[in-house]
Amino acid sequence: MASTFSERLFSMDYPDLVAFVSKTTHQFIKGYLQLLEEDFTPDLREATDAYLLRGGKCLRPMLLLLSALAAGERSPQHLASAMLAVECYHTATLVHDDIIDHDELRRGKPTVHTLVARRIASRYPRLDASKAADYGMATAIVAGDILFGYSAQLFGLLSAHYPLGVVNSILLEQSCELHPGLLLGEQLDMELEMMDLQDVTPKMVEKMMRLKTGLLLGFAARVGAALGSRKPIDKCPLAETLENAAEDAGVAFQIQDDILGLFGDEAQLGKPIGSDLREGKPTLLMVKAWAKATPAERRTLKKVLGNPKLTESDVAAVRAIVERTGALASCRRRANTLVKQAEKACQTVSDVTARKLLLCWLDTLVKRSH
Amino acid sequence: MASTFSERLFSMDYPDLVAFVSKTTHQFIKGYLQLLEEDFTPDLREATDAYLLRGGKCLRPMLLLLSALAAGERSPQHLASAMLAVECYHTATLVHDDIIDHDELRRGKPTVHTLVARRIASRYPRLDASKAADYGMATAIVAGDILFGYSAQLFGLLSAHYPLGVVNSILLEQSCELHPGLLLGEQLDMELEMMDLQDVTPKMVEKMMRLKTGLLLGFAARVGAALGSRKPIDKCPLAETLENAAEDAGVAFQIQDDILGLFGDEAQLGKPIGSDLREGKPTLLMVKAWAKATPAERRTLKKVLGNPKLTESDVAAVRAIVERTGALASCRRRANTLVKQAEKACQTVSDVTARKLLLCWLDTLVKRSH
Repeated sequence: MASTFSERLFSMDYPDLVAFVSKTTHQFIKGYLQLLEEDFTPDLREATDAYLLRGGKCLRPMLLLLSALAAGERSPQHLASAMLAVECYHTATLVHDDIIDHDELRRGKPTVHTLVARRIASRYPRLDASKAADYGMATAIVAGDILFGYSAQLFGLLSAHYPLGVVNSILLEQSCELHPGLLLGEQLDMELEMMDLQDVTPKMVEKMMRLKTGLLLGFAARVGAALGSRKPIDKCPLAETLENAAEDAGVAFQIQDDILGLFGDEAQLGKPIGSDLREGKPTLLMVKAWAKATPAERRTLKKVLGNPKLTESDVAAVRAIVERTGALASCRRRANTLVKQAEKACQTVSDVTARKLLLCWLDTLVKRSH
Repeated sequence: MASTFSERLFSMDYPDLVAFVSKTTHQFIKGYLQLLEEDFTPDLREATDAYLLRGGKCLRPMLLLLSALAAGERSPQHLASAMLAVECYHTATLVHDDIIDHDELRRGKPTVHTLVARRIASRYPRLDASKAADYGMATAIVAGDILFGYSAQLFGLLSAHYPLGVVNSILLEQSCELHPGLLLGEQLDMELEMMDLQDVTPKMVEKMMRLKTGLLLGFAARVGAALGSRKPIDKCPLAETLENAAEDAGVAFQIQDDILGLFGDEAQLGKPIGSDLREGKPTLLMVKAWAKATPAERRTLKKVLGNPKLTESDVAAVRAIVERTGALASCRRRANTLVKQAEKACQTVSDVTARKLLLCWLDTLVKRSH
């Protein structure tokens, strides 16, 4: 029976598979949250559920599933709680990241702290705006903390179907490697933003991206490979191969995202062009441009970076510098190299179906435009 | 050898035992953090380490140790990572709680977010004060997240000395029961503060205190009992008895803390008398006073609660109402009942030494004046 389901699942076209996985993950999430949050207040429930119920592309659950397939998983239905665990973990980081970045929108809708601030303001119309914002932020801190916990819960549930040693190796990997690493990436992101552009090196920016974006993708791949092979996460050679591929893909994605943030299309991007500039983020583009810029160009870059009142002509000026210095071409080359590396790693997967689907996943990640 | 150490440890007087445990826990923490945070930036390291290195009474590690003794533990040295795990978990909640409450002091020194804000301000003297505060808050969010993860790591390490089934039951208990429960308590605390005093009931306040303060004490006791008996946490009858005692003790402690906050001594308390009033916290005292207050007294309570510019005579007026309505006496009675219940539960422990030490622990908790 299980093998029939597995065969059916993995004979789908990639877009059909994504649609199926998104739908079932979404259904599972809904049921799980209902069961778990009976006791929660409406504000807290809204805060913990908002992003999870907005759907999304399920990039991390998909990667976990495909990595398990590559490692020989025959009962993909048992992976459900692990797939949900990585999604909850990712969501927890988004909720806290949105507070840290003061972002108001996520996937075109209000961020958690914004949402809760509005709820309380409409409940107590005489409430101070700053008190409402505080309450929104505090609730979002609590909600993020809770979502981190869901991930540990959900991994724990795997012990119904997988050896305890494998499950334990995943929990240890999460708490010893992923968690402190990803959060260090978050911290580095903030610290780079405080620094002067001339003090930031491409190496520092890449390290930050690898930790903040790459690590969780690598972890999803490792968990999938460990579960699929029923081996502890540190004893599974495929886990390491796929982890490297996923990390490289994550960094490539992030570089492309930064390029799009400056050269992309506002409607597609879902946020104004030049947001990174306004916030003063030293992206790889900016750091590489600085290194090759003339003194006059450097004055422009300094003037524009972190200026909240940026004009369209400022953005155009930065674009020109980024192109003139070769920073744009250099970033594109770097992203390309990383994608090629990731592809090469995926090519070593022996199962034909798994290999094909992993390459589709990679393609979706690095070709997506927002 | 192990039994000799155990005998030596448990033949100490209670104050000597506390001193020994605080010292060794502190040493272990220091070594662990050094090992773990090699890669961290100085700001992040400061943020994660600050509270842990300030020492403290180790109430939760002590309770875990004594509960394990009560359950027959003969190798207390193996408990070290569990004791540190509950301390890290507690510290994580403090770091986030201090952001939420905008507190500037913790154990007489700056809170994490305040500390980091000052560090960045002194590094970049031209930085906006609000940007420095933001950076302090963001770093404290990240540091709290990391500390939650340390706790899972440290529990994971127990598998070197305890059966995997026991360790797994602890991790599941933490992520399924403790974590969402304690954070719901944090949320309820915020939500009660937003409500009008007349809408808050004693039951709501007690539920909040049980979740926010009682649950973690109960968890420390359960973990100790489970480890000491080498039984999964849900299969250990002593775990339940000690959990109830610890939860009751936690609520009693919180009630007394609220009483001290209004009637105590400012120097002993470490914060100004009437802080709860200023912040608008509907404590059990206030809720009970409201229920029995005259219309004129209610007007006074309403005027004073949440008024940041509270005078000494306002505080005196509230004290008089709290006494006149019998709220003070009623809260003292309630705390007393809870302590008696906890004592009764501890009396059922068969090991004489463990029983005696648990009663000392209880005494320290409910008699401490700040």
